[in-house]
Amino acid sequence: MSKPTLYTCLSPALLHLYNVRECIVVVIDILRATSTIATALHNGAKEIIPVDSVEKCIRLGKNMACITAGERDGKVAEGLQYGNSSFEYPREFIQGKILVLTTTNGTKLLHMALAKGATEIVTGSFLNFSAVCDHLLSTKKNIILACAGWKDKVNIEDSLFAGAVIAKVGQHFEVDCDASNIAASLYDQAKNDLFEFMKKSNASHYHRLMNFGLERDIRHCMTKDIANVLPYYINERLVI
Amino acid sequence: MSKPTLYTCLSPALLHLYNVRECIVVVIDILRATSTIATALHNGAKEIIPVDSVEKCIRLGKNMACITAGERDGKVAEGLQYGNSSFEYPREFIQGKILVLTTTNGTKLLHMALAKGATEIVTGSFLNFSAVCDHLLSTKKNIILACAGWKDKVNIEDSLFAGAVIAKVGQHFEVDCDASNIAASLYDQAKNDLFEFMKKSNASHYHRLMNFGLERDIRHCMTKDIANVLPYYINERLVI
Repeated sequence: MSKPTLYTCLSPALLHLYNVRECIVVVIDILRATSTIATALHNGAKEIIPVDSVEKCIRLGKNMACITAGERDGKVAEGLQYGNSSFEYPREFIQGKILVLTTTNGTKLLHMALAKGATEIVTGSFLNFSAVCDHLLSTKKNIILACAGWKDKVNIEDSLFAGAVIAKVGQHFEVDCDASNIAASLYDQAKNDLFEFMKKSNASHYHRLMNFGLERDIRHCMTKDIANVLPYYINERLVI
Repeated sequence: MSKPTLYTCLSPALLHLYNVRECIVVVIDILRATSTIATALHNGAKEIIPVDSVEKCIRLGKNMACITAGERDGKVAEGLQYGNSSFEYPREFIQGKILVLTTTNGTKLLHMALAKGATEIVTGSFLNFSAVCDHLLSTKKNIILACAGWKDKVNIEDSLFAGAVIAKVGQHFEVDCDASNIAASLYDQAKNDLFEFMKKSNASHYHRLMNFGLERDIRHCMTKDIANVLPYYINERLVI
């Protein structure tokens, strides 16, 4: 029996090159949407409603009991209550609540994948690395690792996560995809210290967040399995 | 004085993210358009006219004394005389002649860059690596390293060339670009033996050409400075 396929899409602007139907799409936005999604659900959030605009986020906030959160250009978006740092969502705050979230790259990519006909979407981050890998290994379906990047540009941290997944599960899949092999090669160089690699390789997002004083956020988002749940998309929500 | 900028565009489908005006665009299609361009000009071709369709290539061939050549899906395109292997263009054949060339990725990208307003285009390959780097260092302009990829997918060999250029000239430029750093990291792992790296990392183009019996072509295209000229685009032609 042939193996299921695994492709890596390094930017949302390349998503049209991949057939997202009948496969698992792993949405990856390490800094910070998918890290925050894993954290909030791990800490007991009832569900997360990802939306693609600040306006929709505000509108939902008026119509239902929920927390509205979102970021544009790395900062809390105007009109929203919270941002997309994991540290804003400890258990004592988020447990049992609904979080409505919009971000520059991650939630946008999720909606792009839906628009292109994706039927199975999970979100991936280092925080829930093993839960994602276990799911991919047990379901044995075709996979697309979809990196959110930064405003359609390829970024290092999302590529690193794709590489980490490939290093872990790649042998069980048909990886006939240069982007996957580039990601795997990158991760191989970075794996001993992801934070140091981000620093050394002058990652643009590293600088953006460091300039906001968010080193703790970066270090947190580079840590494996500290919010090890599997967020999956169903009925317009992310749940575990 | 601030340094000029250097960006790497990993796929033609991402070219819209970069401002191609007032900078040098290096078109990169290692397997094999830009390698063949360097070879043919190095071997004395009078000029190369890159065109974006097989039809236009055939039409030009009827209207002027020239050699028509081109490839689609890695094979000589129907209706054309020659393909895009360097070995088809030895000096005794190509000297003094005009070559009209169309390829799946490389010439298409060149025309995309023109359509977006690029005014300075050169072509890069390992065969003319030093000539390209010397030009970038001496002109001190902003640079976009534009990878042709394969049908808009990111590929290893073009990324490797971008990485090689960055390793050589990067310190003289402002490289605030994750794609550049990914390419540089990739090259760093591959630099001791580019051919073996292509093989080991399961590069898709490696397999495509190996299946056509073209190992010699791949090895040739991974060799530095054996056709060390600087093809630049002017008056709808590539000349040196």
